[in-house]
Amino acid sequence: MTHLDEILKSRRDTRHFTNDEVPDAVVQKALQAGHWAPSVGLTDATKYYLIKSTEIKKAIKELFLEYDIKAANLTDDVNQKTQYQALKLEAIEEAPLGLVICYDRSVLNSFTIGTVGSNEAIKFSSVCAVQNIWLSLTEQGYSMGWVSILNYYQFKQLLGLPENIEPLGYFCVGKPATNYENQPMLQQLNWKQKQEAPFIEEITVLHESKIENINFENQDRTETSSDFSKALQYKIDNKTKPLGSLGILEVVAKQIGEVFQTLEPKITKPNMVVFAADHGIANHGVSAYPQDVTRQMVINFLEGGAAINVFCKQNNIQLSIVDAGVNYDFPMNANLISAKIGKGTHSFLQGPAMSKTEVDLCFIKGSEIVATIAKTGSNCIGFGEMGIGNTATASVLMSVILKLPIEDCVGKGTGVNDEQLIQKINILKKAIDNYNGSEDLDSKLAYFGGFEIMQMVGGMLKAKEENMLLLVDGFICSVAFLIAFKKNPSITKNAIFCHSSAEQGHQKILDYLGVRSLLQLDLRLGEGTGCAIAFPIIESAVAFLNDMASFESAGVSGQ
Amino acid sequence: MTHLDEILKSRRDTRHFTNDEVPDAVVQKALQAGHWAPSVGLTDATKYYLIKSTEIKKAIKELFLEYDIKAANLTDDVNQKTQYQALKLEAIEEAPLGLVICYDRSVLNSFTIGTVGSNEAIKFSSVCAVQNIWLSLTEQGYSMGWVSILNYYQFKQLLGLPENIEPLGYFCVGKPATNYENQPMLQQLNWKQKQEAPFIEEITVLHESKIENINFENQDRTETSSDFSKALQYKIDNKTKPLGSLGILEVVAKQIGEVFQTLEPKITKPNMVVFAADHGIANHGVSAYPQDVTRQMVINFLEGGAAINVFCKQNNIQLSIVDAGVNYDFPMNANLISAKIGKGTHSFLQGPAMSKTEVDLCFIKGSEIVATIAKTGSNCIGFGEMGIGNTATASVLMSVILKLPIEDCVGKGTGVNDEQLIQKINILKKAIDNYNGSEDLDSKLAYFGGFEIMQMVGGMLKAKEENMLLLVDGFICSVAFLIAFKKNPSITKNAIFCHSSAEQGHQKILDYLGVRSLLQLDLRLGEGTGCAIAFPIIESAVAFLNDMASFESAGVSGQ
Repeated sequence: MTHLDEILKSRRDTRHFTNDEVPDAVVQKALQAGHWAPSVGLTDATKYYLIKSTEIKKAIKELFLEYDIKAANLTDDVNQKTQYQALKLEAIEEAPLGLVICYDRSVLNSFTIGTVGSNEAIKFSSVCAVQNIWLSLTEQGYSMGWVSILNYYQFKQLLGLPENIEPLGYFCVGKPATNYENQPMLQQLNWKQKQEAPFIEEITVLHESKIENINFENQDRTETSSDFSKALQYKIDNKTKPLGSLGILEVVAKQIGEVFQTLEPKITKPNMVVFAADHGIANHGVSAYPQDVTRQMVINFLEGGAAINVFCKQNNIQLSIVDAGVNYDFPMNANLISAKIGKGTHSFLQGPAMSKTEVDLCFIKGSEIVATIAKTGSNCIGFGEMGIGNTATASVLMSVILKLPIEDCVGKGTGVNDEQLIQKINILKKAIDNYNGSEDLDSKLAYFGGFEIMQMVGGMLKAKEENMLLLVDGFICSVAFLIAFKKNPSITKNAIFCHSSAEQGHQKILDYLGVRSLLQLDLRLGEGTGCAIAFPIIESAVAFLNDMASFESAGVSGQ
Repeated sequence: MTHLDEILKSRRDTRHFTNDEVPDAVVQKALQAGHWAPSVGLTDATKYYLIKSTEIKKAIKELFLEYDIKAANLTDDVNQKTQYQALKLEAIEEAPLGLVICYDRSVLNSFTIGTVGSNEAIKFSSVCAVQNIWLSLTEQGYSMGWVSILNYYQFKQLLGLPENIEPLGYFCVGKPATNYENQPMLQQLNWKQKQEAPFIEEITVLHESKIENINFENQDRTETSSDFSKALQYKIDNKTKPLGSLGILEVVAKQIGEVFQTLEPKITKPNMVVFAADHGIANHGVSAYPQDVTRQMVINFLEGGAAINVFCKQNNIQLSIVDAGVNYDFPMNANLISAKIGKGTHSFLQGPAMSKTEVDLCFIKGSEIVATIAKTGSNCIGFGEMGIGNTATASVLMSVILKLPIEDCVGKGTGVNDEQLIQKINILKKAIDNYNGSEDLDSKLAYFGGFEIMQMVGGMLKAKEENMLLLVDGFICSVAFLIAFKKNPSITKNAIFCHSSAEQGHQKILDYLGVRSLLQLDLRLGEGTGCAIAFPIIESAVAFLNDMASFESAGVSGQ
């Protein structure tokens, strides 16, 4: 055994010291040994502070005691706790000299060699210095004890260390009173046995990276393969969050991934289409507003002053306004899509609102408008409406399609009072009673329909055909969706329900469809405002799917 | 100069080796020297892996080259870059032997002496072993070079190291071809001069703790004049929409107008602060995740991979991450606000989680952080948290503050199962039963508190004082708010509750406060994600108030 080996082997973490002072020369020699330790990038970041003051030692001892109690409470094993409490783990007050070995984090403020993989290299250099000092003290007949059981925040405060100076611990220095029978103290006291020999293993196999590339490009777009579905769910589950903890956002992300059959879906050029039309039934006092408000609001849309303008602008959604049949001849306006079927429907109180040909025309017009939008590269379309009297129309359509009493389908619309509500119900009841047409869907649609509602139906079916994402707004929009669903039930796969309206009928439709909406904000405005307000949340779903780290990439422990 | 001194002084970080093999006996002797290094709590956590395979060395060299380029690009100084690129910083392929010195983090899974103040003690023991090995090799006529410029994640993958084994670097071992003229290579090449002597200073003054009792302004600055309130309501009612039809958005717009006392409120520089800390109670099986996940997630926040990063980026919210007391020493990072009170609280199962002084310190730190953010011109601040075990802490705080049975306050957190839930309830019941402190709020906060929760309290009270808008996230954040509310009930005027969490206790707190949240998306993630996701909706409220046309301006008929 060489001289070095003897020093290495006899070096002890010491907690028992004699009263002998430590001569300055010994300290200087030991710290010089520390200075010979490696210093990454030659930063010389190690700093030594000496403590001789009894008062400071006492304060540090108190810090130690506080954390020692904390440590003891970390074990629930009563024997272990008792054994722990009996251990002497420091000699802060007895050791003649205290040494605080620190590293200066601020060296990282400049370019420093060797820290790009881990800036811990700075502190590791200082730890190497600790070991050198320990060895030098051992050679000189002295020893050291490393006290790490401290609240470092308070420790720094108490010493008045600057923010950038980080202590590795408090080191007790002095002449050892024992060598613990040439073994670590914890072994002498039977806390644990040190292993005879170090753990050594040769690595002979190069491990290939486990990141696989999964290619789904060749899969059929319209058919959801269960492998793809699993891969998508795997991606969602492996984001750095507890399983399912993003709630509805996870459901939406899954849906969007499945619609677009990609693990990295993108929403491109979202478009909000507001269909406006007038309703003959509005002349029978079913609305709080005069029919002319439909025209006024279309102009407000075109001038940018309505709620839907504000929310589309806020969320970068392109807004398209459609005249599906407003009772007014608008001057030509490039921003108004003209798809006028007529100047409002007839009142369905005594006869049909429109002809079957007009229903078909509505489907075609709505479909063309959506096809045009799809051609611009949009893959996400929101549906909104404006039409005085259209909650009445929508309620009746819901009632006759779902065969529910009109009372279950009607609400206060945009604001009739209780008395007006009773009147509204009575009128609509009478209208339904008056119907003696056939039971097929299209006959009912022609009799009770509204131009904007039927154009929405055509538009939604086209959007499904184009495999776009469909954003469904409140009650009236959901009635249009209900009709589209009756014509193509698979449309639900592409639809996101944005808002549960305060209209009582709305929740019943959502329940019938077995869907849940994103928002419940008591909106009852229409115009597609629910879609526009909910849009950032849909974007959040896409964003987490694309941009969050996985457990593997972030090195976070999963469940 | 002693023999030891000569070895210490001549030890070199070597990057130039001869072709001589390293005899096994030399390696064994050196690793035995490493084994004589200190091992905190006698954990024997150091592991040695030998690399002789040319193929593996080649793969490691490639990893090095990748990071070396990254390092070179960290400096904008062209001369420095050129000089850096000319340096030989490794000898991975030339050195006959590769050594990977690692520490096994899993020793922390059992009770380990000396790690309560900092669990870095484990890795420091292994660094001491590195230094011993270096010295032994030097004495034997060999040397070593420490390569730290590596992507450690890929490095571990490539070697097939288990999750719990953490390498300190790749160490090149061989016979040195030069001693760099008896100085560090970087000095020989004039990169830098090593300082002549170490930095040594004696500390003679005990610095008193600066913790004062903080008094938050209890006075409500936003006196709501009834005239102003009427004018604001008039403005809302005269937007081109049916009365009240924007539902909760109208309530939020009214609130924001009243907080800022203006008809045209603007949200400026919104900031999301996530407070992270560890909880002693986490050691008693109250969470589905190990405590180390707190650290991992903070790193994930800093690297931009967590949910809150994604949502803040999406919605242009500045994100601030605070280390309020994570059980880990983070390397210096400009993006991490250090407000560490301690390395996790004590377990409150048998004794207090923290001292009253620490509670006050939390209030001060939280308050300072918010004050700093307010100074940047932000008038809207979101509060989020991260801390394994903090739903347990929050539940107990809720139970003792509202005097509700713990069963009514506890939930599954981020995902314990039914059996674990019963266990969680039993542990928390026991903890509450063990409490025999006084009935005042602050005593309870110290006994059961968490560092991040208390810092949030301080931050919230300061945000109210600065008359900022406060965005409150889910359950844990709401418990912090409840405490802030107990200290200043008028704080509710400034608070927007962003999301109703799935934790059962949350709705009870909202009911107690008489408030309603904006979103119900089944989120149960924390991190402030509810605030970040809800933020665009708050912006929608402000946008309609400022940007929508009035009935008069648009020429639309009102009611």
